[in-house]
Amino acid sequence: MQTVVIVGVGLIGGSFALALRDAGFDGRIIGVSSERTIAEALRNRVIDEGLPLDRACAQADLIYLAGPIHSILDTIPRLDEHARGGTLVTDAGSTKQKIAAAGAKLRRAQFLGGHPMAGKESRGVQAAEGQLFVGRPYLLTPESPADMETPAAVEFLAWVRKIGAVPRVLSPAQHDRIVAHSSHLPQLLSTALSGTLGRHPDSEQIAAAAGPGLVDSTRLAMSSWDIWRDILETNRPSILEALDLFIADAQALRARYVSSELEADFAEGKEFALRLRNSR
Amino acid sequence: MQTVVIVGVGLIGGSFALALRDAGFDGRIIGVSSERTIAEALRNRVIDEGLPLDRACAQADLIYLAGPIHSILDTIPRLDEHARGGTLVTDAGSTKQKIAAAGAKLRRAQFLGGHPMAGKESRGVQAAEGQLFVGRPYLLTPESPADMETPAAVEFLAWVRKIGAVPRVLSPAQHDRIVAHSSHLPQLLSTALSGTLGRHPDSEQIAAAAGPGLVDSTRLAMSSWDIWRDILETNRPSILEALDLFIADAQALRARYVSSELEADFAEGKEFALRLRNSR
Repeated sequence: MQTVVIVGVGLIGGSFALALRDAGFDGRIIGVSSERTIAEALRNRVIDEGLPLDRACAQADLIYLAGPIHSILDTIPRLDEHARGGTLVTDAGSTKQKIAAAGAKLRRAQFLGGHPMAGKESRGVQAAEGQLFVGRPYLLTPESPADMETPAAVEFLAWVRKIGAVPRVLSPAQHDRIVAHSSHLPQLLSTALSGTLGRHPDSEQIAAAAGPGLVDSTRLAMSSWDIWRDILETNRPSILEALDLFIADAQALRARYVSSELEADFAEGKEFALRLRNSR
Repeated sequence: MQTVVIVGVGLIGGSFALALRDAGFDGRIIGVSSERTIAEALRNRVIDEGLPLDRACAQADLIYLAGPIHSILDTIPRLDEHARGGTLVTDAGSTKQKIAAAGAKLRRAQFLGGHPMAGKESRGVQAAEGQLFVGRPYLLTPESPADMETPAAVEFLAWVRKIGAVPRVLSPAQHDRIVAHSSHLPQLLSTALSGTLGRHPDSEQIAAAAGPGLVDSTRLAMSSWDIWRDILETNRPSILEALDLFIADAQALRARYVSSELEADFAEGKEFALRLRNSR
């Protein structure tokens, strides 16, 4: 892998570039992004060069699509005509079935979907950091097991490990069901909680009394609609299923609170919270 | 204020002692706690001395009750017979109406309820830190405005500011309604979410795919039942009201997700999340 092209040099794309450098990658990193982003990415030494998509792809061993989902879906069909044979195309989109279907149509380039479970409140290349993926799951979503065994895929997997991430392999459909629960449901709950409190007649006093728990619980509510519009559009059935499951559980918890006590709920909640911390 | 007695030298009581020291308090700090906790608090120089409640109270200018709510409720009626006239009794309990009612019966000592909106995952005196209250709201719940104007209350308020906390005054009833929304509702949602995911057939994969958002969303689920039993018992009507409001809002959000889109929900959620960060 000599030349990596990052399409969309924001928080994730920029962090992937920095992480490759930190992990010892000494090839060329080319960015494809808006003029302003490219200027900033060059200034911060995140990329070596900015180029238009066609010229960048013609040199790429790895094309890393890190924009919003709709832009990934727009870009994939344009890659085959420019990419060399054997180039690996991967992405960092938060839902995988629609992207995998688009990727499956590539002929010269190979597609392997991915989803690094990393992020933070700040966006943009100025927030990029080389350690963003350390200790975080990196979900890979091949259409078939053979997709993981091409030379380009094996090399990419090695880099995922070298940047400190923990790769996990799921089918695109499994991925979308899992993240509907692990990521999309928590997002909607944080948005809903923030909305409930923001609309409350005492919302000023509630905000003024906020402790660290409420700060944690509303962090996701600061997420950008630009990103979430696409996620909600491309994973609706699984997200609705997760939301229904949660609402039913919340109603059952309310009933237990009225009729008895919640000791078992607290024990179960703690068990899972500890389990997910131990499985990282 | 020369002698401060901390009853219950755990995370909050220990942190209050350390915070006083950091803020320049040069009087005596006496701890009332289990033998083991006193030994650890002495070893870590959190307190100067451990004493039984009666002997400690006889010397106190300020009695700071930092145990669980049931222990605060048990302790308050025992204070008058030992405390000197003019001693201020305050507490750090998470609900205030029942505690304020108990405090109102004190005759020699003056009661002024309090609730520092600070905390963290770890408990116990070994987790105590002098900076725990910096920038955090410190809710004070006088029964009447005059309670804030006694010399002992004025001095205590000055120390609350000196330890870096931001004092806010509410009636006990207002307090319990506000924290039902700002603190108790987020706790139950985190517990419910953790339970939903922990019981899910794919819970292992969900845990393995957890990103920073799910880690934040499940942090409160690690809270101790020992503490929450009392909170849930002593603030039931307000917590049920908050929970019902949230469940109705979550159902309405689900309906909007099916029929249209959630852009306005994201905007509202973000607005409140930013507002609470700015009001700290």
